[in-house]
Amino acid sequence: MNIKKILIVAGTHGNEINPIWAVNQLNKEQNNVNKDIEYKYIIGNPLAYEKGSRYVDSDLNRSFNSNNQNIEKNKNNYEINRAKFLVEQYGINGAEPCQIAVDLHTTTANMGTSIVMYGRRIKDFCLAALLQNKFGLPIYLHEKDKRQTGFLVEAWPCGLVIEIGSVAQNYYDSKIINRFLIIINSLREEINKLKKNLIAIPKKLIVHVHQGSIDYPRTKTGDINGLIHPDRMNKDWKPIKKGDPLFLDIEGNTLRYSGLDIIWPVFISEVAYKEKNIAMSFTKKEVICSSNDWVEQLLEL
Amino acid sequence: MNIKKILIVAGTHGNEINPIWAVNQLNKEQNNVNKDIEYKYIIGNPLAYEKGSRYVDSDLNRSFNSNNQNIEKNKNNYEINRAKFLVEQYGINGAEPCQIAVDLHTTTANMGTSIVMYGRRIKDFCLAALLQNKFGLPIYLHEKDKRQTGFLVEAWPCGLVIEIGSVAQNYYDSKIINRFLIIINSLREEINKLKKNLIAIPKKLIVHVHQGSIDYPRTKTGDINGLIHPDRMNKDWKPIKKGDPLFLDIEGNTLRYSGLDIIWPVFISEVAYKEKNIAMSFTKKEVICSSNDWVEQLLEL
Repeated sequence: MNIKKILIVAGTHGNEINPIWAVNQLNKEQNNVNKDIEYKYIIGNPLAYEKGSRYVDSDLNRSFNSNNQNIEKNKNNYEINRAKFLVEQYGINGAEPCQIAVDLHTTTANMGTSIVMYGRRIKDFCLAALLQNKFGLPIYLHEKDKRQTGFLVEAWPCGLVIEIGSVAQNYYDSKIINRFLIIINSLREEINKLKKNLIAIPKKLIVHVHQGSIDYPRTKTGDINGLIHPDRMNKDWKPIKKGDPLFLDIEGNTLRYSGLDIIWPVFISEVAYKEKNIAMSFTKKEVICSSNDWVEQLLEL
Repeated sequence: MNIKKILIVAGTHGNEINPIWAVNQLNKEQNNVNKDIEYKYIIGNPLAYEKGSRYVDSDLNRSFNSNNQNIEKNKNNYEINRAKFLVEQYGINGAEPCQIAVDLHTTTANMGTSIVMYGRRIKDFCLAALLQNKFGLPIYLHEKDKRQTGFLVEAWPCGLVIEIGSVAQNYYDSKIINRFLIIINSLREEINKLKKNLIAIPKKLIVHVHQGSIDYPRTKTGDINGLIHPDRMNKDWKPIKKGDPLFLDIEGNTLRYSGLDIIWPVFISEVAYKEKNIAMSFTKKEVICSSNDWVEQLLEL
């Protein structure tokens, strides 16, 4: 068992303030006493938090591409430098090495509490399986999206995002904070139970696999010209089939899904994604069978 | 009957985007055909809207103090200059005079659809009475608050704010948009019915009168150190009596209301008011008796 320290990151986006409150509260409690796994709590983007904005120069949670630092134009970019610092400080080979990173986010989409994972790393699957088993959380597996890379947790050998919504940016909600507290408080206990063979991971893991994203209808000048359809609002994780409404344009026309495959939408109407030209992302369900190898790989971290 | 034109302002705060959608939609319809009262739709703060922020230099809806323009340091302030332009263009003595201004806002507080009025102007009371009669909307009467002055509608001889929540900043919600559309579509019809003696205003008007505001608990360095208590969240317009919980601090202590009088809170947890040191505002209920004079004053505008 080599998991010594888990990095818990809040405020990777500075205007997602509920996880920041949660880690500040946990930091006031003596939460590392008599624990074989230590938690290290940090604020991902303190300057953006201070400003009440998602980021200063660019999205920190797209800034962990290792070659970013070598590009001349990035040398004064706050988030690129911050990403470099975080890896040097808390990365697996850093000054204060953490074997796992858990990055806490909120969304304005009505996704409830969910897990986001990036790519198909066995260790991530195992950690996600533990949490899905304990809390029944849905898992969004983000992969094969060339437009979106450089996520924080990818810079650690194992890591997940916990994503909770809906909650407005810069809006404190004690119910949302409590959900973060419950998950963080359970995480290392679950890992310890796994280590002691007190629990097993489930044989099957249900994941929602990213297929692509769609933008809002827009005018020629780029302004959003269609709302999420009233029948689609707040319906994250609910299947969409051919002919179902997606948008309502300003003339009152309904724009419908024309694909043949049933898809499950996530991040419907996330405010921060308007600038990324994403009105919602489409996923398909996939069942992944676990193996004993998963547990071994996680515990050998 | 001298009401010729009603100014409908959306986006006085640039990140309150649902009213902007509503007026853009109404502008596409030929909504002034065969109407004796014309609507003039404008975006209050187009530059802030473009940036996705509440304001650029200062809050436009606190920038309508007529002496603001004379202060040297304000000469390059975008909102001060914008306020001056709006009055010169659409004010009662402007290039395109409007007799009434209706300013459309959203809030992250769970206030439902409500009317905000500033001070006790008879014409405003009459307009508010019309809307309260039609839709049963609660009225927040803001007065005697020296910290908060220079509201847009005060620069017109008659004007109200329509405030709808909860909705996140920069988040489109067709249900919220519909509520604005319904109210705007009814307003001039109600005025016309009043003119033709088809309806009367109610004998009594219930208003929630501003008493003051309270800030969040804060640390010595000014950081917010207490959440709105879970039992208080989303309970706008619901009475608070001595001993009722207000905040939950980071150590888990409940901070309670210690006043003797029952008060009714509004704008609980409005995101934009954190910088104004307002966690919620307190009101008291008051019943105001109408008189025939009200209708005469409104129709003589």
